[in-house]
Formats: sequence, C-alpha cells, structure tokens
Amino acid sequence: MGFEFTFEVTAVDGKARNGRFHTPHGPIHTPVFAPVGTQATVKALKPDDLASLGATLVLSNTYHLYLRPGDALVRELGGLHQFMQWPGPILTDSGGFQVFSLSQTRKIDADGVTFQSHLDGSHHRFTPESSIAIQENLGADIIMAFDECPPPTDYAYVQHSLTRTHPWLERCAAAKTRQDQALFGIVQGGIFADLRAESAAFVTGLDLPGYAIGGLAVGETKTQMYQTLDATVPLLPANKPRYLMGVGEPEDLVNAVLRGVDIFDCVAPTRLARHGTAYVRGGRLNLRNAAHTRDAAPIAADCGCYTCQHFSRAYLRHLVKADEILAHVLLSIHNVHFLIDLMGQMRAAIERGELEGFAEAFLSHYEEIGD
Amino acid sequence: MGFEFTFEVTAVDGKARNGRFHTPHGPIHTPVFAPVGTQATVKALKPDDLASLGATLVLSNTYHLYLRPGDALVRELGGLHQFMQWPGPILTDSGGFQVFSLSQTRKIDADGVTFQSHLDGSHHRFTPESSIAIQENLGADIIMAFDECPPPTDYAYVQHSLTRTHPWLERCAAAKTRQDQALFGIVQGGIFADLRAESAAFVTGLDLPGYAIGGLAVGETKTQMYQTLDATVPLLPANKPRYLMGVGEPEDLVNAVLRGVDIFDCVAPTRLARHGTAYVRGGRLNLRNAAHTRDAAPIAADCGCYTCQHFSRAYLRHLVKADEILAHVLLSIHNVHFLIDLMGQMRAAIERGELEGFAEAFLSHYEEIGD
Repeated sequence: MGFEFTFEVTAVDGKARNGRFHTPHGPIHTPVFAPVGTQATVKALKPDDLASLGATLVLSNTYHLYLRPGDALVRELGGLHQFMQWPGPILTDSGGFQVFSLSQTRKIDADGVTFQSHLDGSHHRFTPESSIAIQENLGADIIMAFDECPPPTDYAYVQHSLTRTHPWLERCAAAKTRQDQALFGIVQGGIFADLRAESAAFVTGLDLPGYAIGGLAVGETKTQMYQTLDATVPLLPANKPRYLMGVGEPEDLVNAVLRGVDIFDCVAPTRLARHGTAYVRGGRLNLRNAAHTRDAAPIAADCGCYTCQHFSRAYLRHLVKADEILAHVLLSIHNVHFLIDLMGQMRAAIERGELEGFAEAFLSHYEEIGD
Repeated sequence: MGFEFTFEVTAVDGKARNGRFHTPHGPIHTPVFAPVGTQATVKALKPDDLASLGATLVLSNTYHLYLRPGDALVRELGGLHQFMQWPGPILTDSGGFQVFSLSQTRKIDADGVTFQSHLDGSHHRFTPESSIAIQENLGADIIMAFDECPPPTDYAYVQHSLTRTHPWLERCAAAKTRQDQALFGIVQGGIFADLRAESAAFVTGLDLPGYAIGGLAVGETKTQMYQTLDATVPLLPANKPRYLMGVGEPEDLVNAVLRGVDIFDCVAPTRLARHGTAYVRGGRLNLRNAAHTRDAAPIAADCGCYTCQHFSRAYLRHLVKADEILAHVLLSIHNVHFLIDLMGQMRAAIERGELEGFAEAFLSHYEEIGD
C-alpha cells in the first residue's frame, strides 16, 4: 500500500517552526520528542501510559529487535505496531549506532559491518540492504538509513567515514520496497562544518521525506553540538522534517528547536528514572538524596503529570530506596511528561512568535549550558 | 474520630455469604481478595491501575514499613492512605509473621519478640503494644493483633504458642487508642481442631469487628488447610467478617469461600508475575516457555484485563525474556485481575444461590487440588 508522506509547516518563528508530518499511523505534530522503546517497550510504561502522556512518535531499535525476538517474528505477528500495541507512529533506527556502541567486536568494511551480539556473542552482519529488510519486517512508519556514527572530533576518520555512509544511503534507498514507510537520510560530518556541508549536499541530493542529523551527543561539547547545528540545519530543505538523533537533554531540545530541528529522541528520561532521578526546571532531582526524606511536596508543584499530582518526594524516595518497580514507573512518567510537555510549550510559543523569550527564560535556569 | 465498623451479610449460599464491611475509606464487598502492597506499593502497579482492576482492600506490611521508611515518617506524611495514595480501605498485618519468616535472628519470650532487621542486621523488638502503636502510626482501616505464627503441624508447639498469642490479643485490645481502626483478632491452632476450637473460643470472647484465621498456607497440605477451615469457620460469629490470612491460590479462594471465608490476601499474583507466570483457569502459564514464542493469542481469550485485551503471549514472552519492567507490570495486572474477577464471579454466584455449581466447574479445571 502506498502512502504520501507530507510535511506541512504550520508556523514559523525565527529558525524554529511548527509542523505536521503525516504518517500511516497519524500525524506527528512537530517539534516532537519521541520516547525510546528499545526492545519494543518504552521501559516501565504501558502504551496507555504513553498515550496519557501525549506521546505520538515512539522510537524502537533495530539492533535489539533483530537479535531478540527477531524481526521475522515481529513481522509474523503483524509488525511492530501490533506487537507492542502502539497505535501511533513509530520510528526505527538502522541498527548502525548500536552495532558501534553495544556489540562486542565489530569489523567495518565498505560493504557493511560484522559484529558479535552483546547477548550471546553470536556473529552477525548488517549491510544497508539487510538493515532495510529488517526495518521493513518491523514495519515502522519512519525508517533510517544505515550509516556509520564516527567519533565526532576526528577529522580524518569522519571524512573517510562519509565515503562509506553516502554510498550506503544510496543502497538503502535502492533496497527499500515498502511504500508505507518513510526513509530518512542521515547527514554526518562530526563537528566539522565543511564535512557537514559535504554530507548535507549529498544526502539532500536524494529526494527523501525527511532528513536526520546524526553523530551528535556522542562525546562532543554542547557548544560544539550547537555550532554544528548552526552550520547544518540551514543546509536542510525547509519543507522536510529535520530529526536530531539521540538528543536529548531538556536544554538541548530548546537549543535545537531554536535552530530549526523538528524531531528528537533520547533514552535519558526513562534511564534517569531508573536511577532515581527526575527532571526539574533548571536541572535534575536525585530522589535518593536524604533531603527528600520527609518532603511532602511533589517533584514539581506546577507539574501536571500523574506522579506529581499524587505523590510526595518522600514517597518517591522511599520507593527508590526500596528498589520498587513503581519508582521506575512513576519517575518515567514524570520525566517523559517533562519532555513532551516542554515540546508542547515550545510549539505554543512558536505559534505565538515568542519562542526566543520562552527559550531565554527556560535556559536561564540551567547553569551549565556551555561546556 | 470514631467510626462504627459494621458488617452486613447481603446474601447467603450454603456456608458462603456476600457482605459489606464498612470502613472509614469506603465499603468492602466480600468475599474480597486484597492485593499486597508490602512496602506501601503493590509491586509494579500504580494506584490507578489497582482502581481499574476493581481493587478495594489493599494490604500492607507493618514489619517492612516499620523498618523502612519508618512508621513515624508515614504518620508525619499523613498516614499510609496519603503516603501511597490509595484512597480505599487498607489493612496492615501486625508484623509478627514477617518477624518469624524474614528477620535474621529472633528471640521470642512471653512479652514479645526481639529480632534483627533483614535489611541491615540492626536490633529491634516488637511487643503487642509496639505493634499496635506502629499500626496506629500507619493508620490502616483494619489492623491485626500481634500473634505468633507457629509451625502448623507441631501440636506441642502450637498448644504452647496459644498461651502467648491469647494474652497478646488482650494486650493489643488494651493498647489500641484510635477509634477509626478496626482491630481483628486472629485464631491460631495449627491444623488441630481442638486447638482451633480453644483459640476460637478465646478470641471470639472479645467483641471485635472481625476475626482472622492465621497460621495456614505455611507448610500444611491443602487437605489439612480445608479440614482446618471446616473445623474453624463455624466457630466464628456469622455477623463479623472472616479473614483467612495469606491465602491464596485461585483454588484456595474458591474452597475457602465455599466454607464461609470473606477476606483474603496473598503476594502470589504479583510475585508470580515477576517470575513470568500468569494465572489461567486450571493452572498457570509460564511465559518463558518456548511454546509461546510465536503465539499471537492473549494469555486468556475470555479475559477482560488490559493485558489480555492488548498483548499476545509472544509479546509477553519477549518482555519476560528481555527482563523488561513492562513484563512485571502487564503480568501483575493480569494476575491481580484474575483473582479480583474470580471473587466478583463468586459474589455473583452467591447472589444467585449457585456457588456450589460455580465452584465445581471452576475446580474441575484444577487437577492438583488435593495433596
């Protein structure tokens, strides 16, 4: 079945914009933050929790699902939407990033990557073609090109890496057979403006329904990340959604929306939750801290999430200290809500043409925006 | 503040009956199964999940909450209802059972029990008076007498134990100061009809709003448990609720309701869930089993719970194998629903005067009801 992936820009405010990206599983209102469901579950959250939080786009990881339970099984069971019971849009990554960051040993060549599973040490190989085949089995609305995520500050390495990543994008586009999935290309180039320009020129030379900025938030400084966005975003077409992969922290989301990014994902909200940490405006709250022992106040008095509407910091600290599953659930709800709500506030500010003021006020609470 | 704890019997069917026990936090429709929230949380379930499941009474454990976060802290934060945000009735046990089953070393004397915390080895002492004081700090609707849970088949031990448990009940009743909590007495006596009769005579000699049967489901056979119920339940007043502590399995619930028991609690549904096991009519389903790998069916086709309404066995097996928190959440929902729904079906059968037929049909699915 065919589907026309269209992106409407509905409001512009400086470099930032509001938009609607239409997918077979409904529209995504951008700027959007996508919670990450690595193994076909956003950790600790039921789909109805996610829906209550206002989530639209959910990300899942090709590397993990390929290894377990296997993409053929997911396909046999009706695809990822049916399998994990997420009725909204889903995005899968290509598996490339996890191969580089998780697998035990890996060997990259011009054709693809051979690696060992982090689960059992078994040997596997990803190529652009196999990554697309796996993602077609999984059946997400948005699928990603198979690329290499190089060390961002190593000029020679990044430059050479582009000679692999660019042909791989062409192979991905050629391998793709499903008409109900949008393939996004990924601009690489590390922190180097000239390499980003080279990559953006190549990637946007292919007519794709969306473009991603990859290879950031992997070790460079925040200043380097923002400078790279300054250099790269203007090179992406205005009529297509722009996806900043693996980002990010609240201050990153604000800084990147200001620079014209539309789509984000990050494991941080649920990972921090499992470590007993909650987002608050201006930073993070560590609920293990003894200061919260007798604190009857919620994490944030002005927060509308289920957790803050019901529970005291003292109770949450008790759950964290007692290693109760409910701690993970309630803190995940708060942290995902925090980021989704932040995106909603930014969309409203863009609508009013007041994003700059909103961002200034929001970022003023963060002391360590720089390096 | 005072409160009159009343119990109305609304339907009788053989020895079984339906009733309403009125508490300061609303009525409990009996027969009822109470999920256990050991550390002020029913593991993996939010209060709104519990409410969706139709839970009314929730149990929490005095021993655990005394040690962490401390009963004085819970009181300071408004009591257990406020602390854990359960708006319905709560029951706390006396701490006695956990002292005997969990603490590292313990020394029992006529006055009370000295024990070491299973958390940090620190030394503590429970007496009837301190148990009541702790339970008054926690503030549950139903509180339990401090007693000893003896090895059920050791006649001499059980007989001697009654000489401690009975005076302790009198001391609990004397120590109690709050008028908005119902103190239940506990009949002990192991598997011995004469000792049960002796204990029932003593315990029901005190005019209390409810009576419990303790010391079962701790090592005796199911036949011994049911025979003990046959001997004991008729000795309890018909106009007060009867609580069978720490029971139980689905077949136990049916057998005990048939014999006139009104209230139950058990950690099994949430504990089994965390081990990847789901209740089904006639037994249990181990979702780790490879047979479920490609199974698109829910745990039970006729189950109305959120888990069965959405997810395949294959997906649940994937979550269990991947050790995902959502496995605990979804299987806890199913298992708690299974028992709460079973109680609702039994109340409806009692209403119609058809419990015996219902029980026969239900129990016919279980092959190992006996020993």
